[in-house]
Amino acid sequence: MLFHVRMDVAIPHQIDPAERAGLVTAERERALALQESGTWLHLWRIVGKHSNISVFDVRSSDELHEILWTLPLFPFMTIDVTPLAAHPSRRKST
Amino acid sequence: MLFHVRMDVAIPHQIDPAERAGLVTAERERALALQESGTWLHLWRIVGKHSNISVFDVRSSDELHEILWTLPLFPFMTIDVTPLAAHPSRRKST
Amino acid sequence: MLFHVRMDVAIPHQIDPAERAGLVTAERERALALQESGTWLHLWRIVGKHSNISVFDVRSSDELHEILWTLPLFPFMTIDVTPLAAHPSRRKST
Amino acid sequence: MLFHVRMDVAIPHQIDPAERAGLVTAERERALALQESGTWLHLWRIVGKHSNISVFDVRSSDELHEILWTLPLFPFMTIDVTPLAAHPSRRKST
Amino acid sequence: MLFHVRMDVAIPHQIDPAERAGLVTAERERALALQESGTWLHLWRIVGKHSNISVFDVRSSDELHEILWTLPLFPFMTIDVTPLAAHPSRRKST
Amino acid sequence: MLFHVRMDVAIPHQIDPAERAGLVTAERERALALQESGTWLHLWRIVGKHSNISVFDVRSSDELHEILWTLPLFPFMTIDVTPLAAHPSRRKST
Amino acid sequence: MLFHVRMDVAIPHQIDPAERAGLVTAERERALALQESGTWLHLWRIVGKHSNISVFDVRSSDELHEILWTLPLFPFMTIDVTPLAAHPSRRKST
Amino acid sequence: MLFHVRMDVAIPHQIDPAERAGLVTAERERALALQESGTWLHLWRIVGKHSNISVFDVRSSDELHEILWTLPLFPFMTIDVTPLAAHPSRRKST
Amino acid sequence: MLFHVRMDVAIPHQIDPAERAGLVTAERERALALQESGTWLHLWRIVGKHSNISVFDVRSSDELHEILWTLPLFPFMTIDVTPLAAHPSRRKST
Amino acid sequence: MLFHVRMDVAIPHQIDPAERAGLVTAERERALALQESGTWLHLWRIVGKHSNISVFDVRSSDELHEILWTLPLFPFMTIDVTPLAAHPSRRKST
Repeated sequence: MLFHVRMDVAIPHQIDPAERAGLVTAERERALALQESGTWLHLWRIVGKHSNISVFDVRSSDELHEILWTLPLFPFMTIDVTPLAAHPSRRKST
Repeated sequence: MLFHVRMDVAIPHQIDPAERAGLVTAERERALALQESGTWLHLWRIVGKHSNISVFDVRSSDELHEILWTLPLFPFMTIDVTPLAAHPSRRKST
Repeated sequence: MLFHVRMDVAIPHQIDPAERAGLVTAERERALALQESGTWLHLWRIVGKHSNISVFDVRSSDELHEILWTLPLFPFMTIDVTPLAAHPSRRKST
Repeated sequence: MLFHVRMDVAIPHQIDPAERAGLVTAERERALALQESGTWLHLWRIVGKHSNISVFDVRSSDELHEILWTLPLFPFMTIDVTPLAAHPSRRKST
Repeated sequence: MLFHVRMDVAIPHQIDPAERAGLVTAERERALALQESGTWLHLWRIVGKHSNISVFDVRSSDELHEILWTLPLFPFMTIDVTPLAAHPSRRKST
Repeated sequence: MLFHVRMDVAIPHQIDPAERAGLVTAERERALALQESGTWLHLWRIVGKHSNISVFDVRSSDELHEILWTLPLFPFMTIDVTPLAAHPSRRKST
Repeated sequence: MLFHVRMDVAIPHQIDPAERAGLVTAERERALALQESGTWLHLWRIVGKHSNISVFDVRSSDELHEILWTLPLFPFMTIDVTPLAAHPSRRKST
Repeated sequence: MLFHVRMDVAIPHQIDPAERAGLVTAERERALALQESGTWLHLWRIVGKHSNISVFDVRSSDELHEILWTLPLFPFMTIDVTPLAAHPSRRKST
Repeated sequence: MLFHVRMDVAIPHQIDPAERAGLVTAERERALALQESGTWLHLWRIVGKHSNISVFDVRSSDELHEILWTLPLFPFMTIDVTPLAAHPSRRKST
Repeated sequence: MLFHVRMDVAIPHQIDPAERAGLVTAERERALALQESGTWLHLWRIVGKHSNISVFDVRSSDELHEILWTLPLFPFMTIDVTPLAAHPSRRKST
């Protein structure tokens, strides 16, 4: 089941640089692992913003919330989730 | 080059049913052809809305505009385009 | 899996009264059937508006879209869907 | 009498961790007690947000305000209250 | 129990003048009756708009919805309802 | 002459508790005095918010500004003022 | 007493041209008369819009509402009224 | 003197096709003439919209308003004007 | 050439009181000088807000920007500029 | 390929003045270099704001993101990017 997720990141300027670097690294590792598992299906950067647009493939909205809630950068993110459905004009992959 | 495109469709209620059906069919054929060519990369329905979220792969913004402008349902659509870039945490496909 | 759904209804003033009555009746019957099946879990009227707030229990977002898309009043509704998850402070029913 | 309540929580990053933990625990105990009494009827987490959607069953808007105003996390919350009414299509529980 | 209600009226230009006059008269009579009963406590015009701000004193949100839903001008109104509570600095009438 | 005034209060978390208490007390005394004089005609709490909706009866907008500008909590408030006029359906008090 | 008033005019395209011309002429005559009396103090066009920004000098908000409500173009206007007060840095005219 | 101007065009669906074509042609001729004179300095299409972003070089805001107000498509456009100034980092053309 | 300018001032609470007083005084002196020169044509306080609505008479948008950019309170202000034009119904001063 | 970019700058008040000056200088040098290379095609100041409207000429959205992401003031900017296309009424330069 697919969910469209937009994440806007706003890390306070005055945060300790080492803490910031640690957070970003941990976030990257988490993202790679979730992509590896096929859960984090698509991940794109929005041009000009510290934001991404992603598509997640999960079994339930509870599973999605657990993933998002435990992302290292969650406390610094505004997240908008849009549930997706199959589009009738979607070309069936042969 | 990737663009995130949201299309919200609002066909007037009082339009002639046959005209509506013709438009929708033409739109579907156009969408299938563009998916076939690899230009229309992703196409999802937004749950609960006559709207879709798509990702287009084009060589220029001019090419994207030409595609959108000539969609049969263009006159009845509100379209928002967000340019995408590669995300540093994007897993490299092996 | 639970989804919070808000539906704002705007039926054009100039619609034929008989058609309006037919739509409303068909919508009510559909709503009752979906409640009967346990899919439409909660249904409340927003005070002062031709709108409702509902909670649906479905197996997938595709199923939810199919339900909403085929509601008789769908063409006259603005629908916003918010995916829900279990809240950690939710009292476990004994 | 039912009220739909959305609570968006924003606890400042720089708050003392122990104080934060204490607030969250106190909030949870308060929520459990209010659910126990039947006042806090429904409580769901909004996917991807430190927010909840709830439904309260109270005898007056004054009672509701008193409850919300005295929630431990009140100072860190944006709360929107929407009064609900019975919906004409609501299935009568047999 | 008090509710703050804002009503923005937008009667289509092309409506039949006699029908418009009838609606406005019926609305006025309804408003006078509800004021007479003490339900419609305050009624002010917003300067420069075909809108009013009112305060209703009712026993439940269901009662308020029934009142608003049956106002002659309801189909042409956007209504926003804000539940009110007693303010701690409110001077007790001696 | 009547003005509808909404005040949303946001006192910074990190303010000294004694200073906060002093401000709130001073604000209450000011509100009581203005109600006593008949200037602050109505004062209600918005359910779920540190906000109020009030109606002021003043001789000029300058007088109203002077009152609002000198409220102890003014520096921490967002204030929206809406001028009111007599409504044609307003029941004449017999 | 001064009020800042913005008027955005939207006359339906399909209105009868003669009716439109009559409305615009009547509006102009009314505006000239009100300027003559000193009530309509300032009147500017917003560049690129069928809108104006005005300042009215009236004795009460009721008087202002009566003026605006009876403008020939009132049914086609969105009007926003902002009460003004003397600014402490306003140069006293010598 | 430079002004940034965004024009969003919304021609009603039900307009007579010949009238539409005439308007668009007249608009194009006007735009070409204004570019020819150096007044309409830049003209770009917003991807996915019947909108443009332009920059005008005029001697006064009155001149700009006169130009915009007399564009053939003016009645069908929402226009937003933003005055521009020289940027301190602007490279001086050698 | 006239520009409508709205300035919303938000000086941080924790600023040093002496610095605040100095800024406000410098701002007032600047405003008086600009009014003296005829540039700052109108200056009104918005009731209930630390904001003003002004009208400036300048020779160019560059001149206006220079004035606004160098106002002592500029760093603490949100400024919105709307270019004005002569209104066709503006009474010619005899 | 052209992109319209608006940058709103908000450097915290309490930042060290030397750091601020360094950032602004570095930003200016970067802007001059990018203009020199023809990438940063247009750069205008929005009157009354610490903001600019620019047009970039780049080969891809990835290139644009890289440029914006590495601007010295990026951490303090809100950036909105609008892809542009050739306008059919654009005068061909002879």
